[in-house]
Amino acid sequence: MDAQEARDRVARAPVGHLATVTAEGRPHVVPFCFVLAGEWIYSAVDGKPKSTLALKRLDNIRRSPAVTVLIDHYDEQWSDLWWVRLDGSAQIWESGARRHDAIEALAFKYPQYRQSTPPGAVIAVEITRWHWWP
Amino acid sequence: MDAQEARDRVARAPVGHLATVTAEGRPHVVPFCFVLAGEWIYSAVDGKPKSTLALKRLDNIRRSPAVTVLIDHYDEQWSDLWWVRLDGSAQIWESGARRHDAIEALAFKYPQYRQSTPPGAVIAVEITRWHWWP
Repeated sequence: MDAQEARDRVARAPVGHLATVTAEGRPHVVPFCFVLAGEWIYSAVDGKPKSTLALKRLDNIRRSPAVTVLIDHYDEQWSDLWWVRLDGSAQIWESGARRHDAIEALAFKYPQYRQSTPPGAVIAVEITRWHWWP
Repeated sequence: MDAQEARDRVARAPVGHLATVTAEGRPHVVPFCFVLAGEWIYSAVDGKPKSTLALKRLDNIRRSPAVTVLIDHYDEQWSDLWWVRLDGSAQIWESGARRHDAIEALAFKYPQYRQSTPPGAVIAVEITRWHWWP
């Protein structure tokens, strides 16, 4: 994989995993829908039903903005496995033009968001480092 | 989902995500093959080609054994999404009978491990808490 291929795979992936760190210093990880825009990853707190802990990611980011995003592919043919990992710094956008633009980018990627606009905050991750394998 | 269903889905899943915390307090997450055995999750450092950072998970665990394992399913039908999250405490087994038994359990689940026994350490996560959604 090269840098362009890593970018293309991230852009096309319907789902990724967002890892944060809790107040107690434990890791936390959730699957999430996202869109890649330049060197940013946007995701929204959307209308999908949540467990009581689902917004823990927001608490974690407010306290500790260093996050990691993993995009990966599993295959029974282990020679076809791959992943791309993005380290970054997360911000929470509750309102305003930046949030609006991020929601538009998400709606461009996900038909579900065109039918039902995400009502909540946007998590915006500024990517500081790309890693990929193989 | 109930507790039995959560257990069944974890047992059947071919791949999960293991999240740890780095020395710098950043989250780290990797896709991993694993087997559920009672209240333990076993995984092996296997012969799959690694990036230079792939063993970071071992360094992280030695320093900070609190880990999280996420098993999840993505579907374009968002009503079919689900995840199970296991918080736990990880140990590294470099040799001995426990490591041997864990490798056997992994080989029972993965034909790839029957053809090529994982040469490296076992990461054993003692599960302390189950969460699931929905």
